[in-house]
Amino acid sequence: MTEFNWTVRVYYEDTDAGGVVYYANYLKFMERARTEWLRDLGFEQDQLLKNEGLVFAVRRVSLEYLKPARLNDLLTVGVRMIEGGAASIDFEQAVTNETGDVLCQGRVKIVCADAESLRPRPLPSAILSELKHVG
Amino acid sequence: MTEFNWTVRVYYEDTDAGGVVYYANYLKFMERARTEWLRDLGFEQDQLLKNEGLVFAVRRVSLEYLKPARLNDLLTVGVRMIEGGAASIDFEQAVTNETGDVLCQGRVKIVCADAESLRPRPLPSAILSELKHVG
Amino acid sequence: MTEFNWTVRVYYEDTDAGGVVYYANYLKFMERARTEWLRDLGFEQDQLLKNEGLVFAVRRVSLEYLKPARLNDLLTVGVRMIEGGAASIDFEQAVTNETGDVLCQGRVKIVCADAESLRPRPLPSAILSELKHVG
Amino acid sequence: MTEFNWTVRVYYEDTDAGGVVYYANYLKFMERARTEWLRDLGFEQDQLLKNEGLVFAVRRVSLEYLKPARLNDLLTVGVRMIEGGAASIDFEQAVTNETGDVLCQGRVKIVCADAESLRPRPLPSAILSELKHVG
Repeated sequence: MTEFNWTVRVYYEDTDAGGVVYYANYLKFMERARTEWLRDLGFEQDQLLKNEGLVFAVRRVSLEYLKPARLNDLLTVGVRMIEGGAASIDFEQAVTNETGDVLCQGRVKIVCADAESLRPRPLPSAILSELKHVG
Repeated sequence: MTEFNWTVRVYYEDTDAGGVVYYANYLKFMERARTEWLRDLGFEQDQLLKNEGLVFAVRRVSLEYLKPARLNDLLTVGVRMIEGGAASIDFEQAVTNETGDVLCQGRVKIVCADAESLRPRPLPSAILSELKHVG
Repeated sequence: MTEFNWTVRVYYEDTDAGGVVYYANYLKFMERARTEWLRDLGFEQDQLLKNEGLVFAVRRVSLEYLKPARLNDLLTVGVRMIEGGAASIDFEQAVTNETGDVLCQGRVKIVCADAESLRPRPLPSAILSELKHVG
Repeated sequence: MTEFNWTVRVYYEDTDAGGVVYYANYLKFMERARTEWLRDLGFEQDQLLKNEGLVFAVRRVSLEYLKPARLNDLLTVGVRMIEGGAASIDFEQAVTNETGDVLCQGRVKIVCADAESLRPRPLPSAILSELKHVG
């Protein structure tokens, strides 16, 4: 099963007056990890946008917030493809701290879309071939 | 059933290079609306934090992204309490544009927690009494 | 002299673990005020972008941070045009809290630019005519 | 002269509908670099906050925006201490892209402050001793 991890440092910009990482920012961290997973597969999103007019848009998110992350924490953000269609992929993602606690986890569905119309488009074949190795 | 709406303008800060509102920012818009709903009920979160050491933490989010919002759009963010426990509330929230399209909708569970330990605490009684009118 | 004020509420999203508004976010607040000032003059930036391929880009910022803003504060963001050229405007901006303390103040130079090339372009004439009333 | 560089990747979260990095986000990038410079000197800001009640607050910023950064760019953020007092430091900072263009540059003054009162406090001695090597 495909799995990929990306490390994220928590800076002041990521935190809020509760002293913890602001809840919306986990979506940023998860996207950084999906972007680096794509890059690892050979896809640069700026090239996909410029050369093929293709964007990946998030279609659905469901997340559980289990424990807070704090300033200066070094987080690991995991990416696991769990299901794919012609134009979409479901990911399982989790954010873990240095002591191994899962802080936030859930599922993200992305769709491959035309940059102008935002209508669904088939996934690039190299991603589709990755999907064949899943589960 | 309790319902509350809050208006949000889309600025450059909210958008991304895809030309649309960045997906994590809907979580900010939804929190602004929950905050204003609370204020409307008589609760100021800075007072709750300073005087009672109480914070509202998001425990779970599930969102569908249906259509994009764009620069300068005037959005309406709805808040509807749908279920409550001793220390938590479930909200239904939706973001709608000026032509009435639902752009993003879903559920958010918040928990009432101690600001230091982040352990659950009973909801303030005025919110509990609101919950009695639900459903 | 042209002057315009815009009100901004501080939410959790704007704060950091120091308990105050994160310093970069004053730039967002100041841009919201400049955007509303432009709208007040009759300019919608999404129309300028779509119809005329024109953007306003920030060329220079100098800001002093005098006092912190905190969660739930209601801030007033002032905009004052102080100088203009064929393709640029200098603004003085200040962020004030409800007790009248100036929290952050400074100058922002924006340039009118082509959205594609980002090369300078003459300001729309209605803004130029405003500039004639300055000073 | 002290100099330190930190690398930052541009993600969708950093960009805006103009297709470029949103101007306020350079302040985040510059703070990441100052944080890593401090870490490199042996200072962890979460420890300074928890153990000594000490924060670094930005007192003044002046920045020039010369060229835009775009999605996926790999930026280098430089930090150079240029002047120091008992409780403050002036930095010169610049953000450069992979082809060596300077995109954004300027000065940032930070003050060492008490986390509660936000009143100035003397800089930690290890930073002061660094300052002696400057200039």
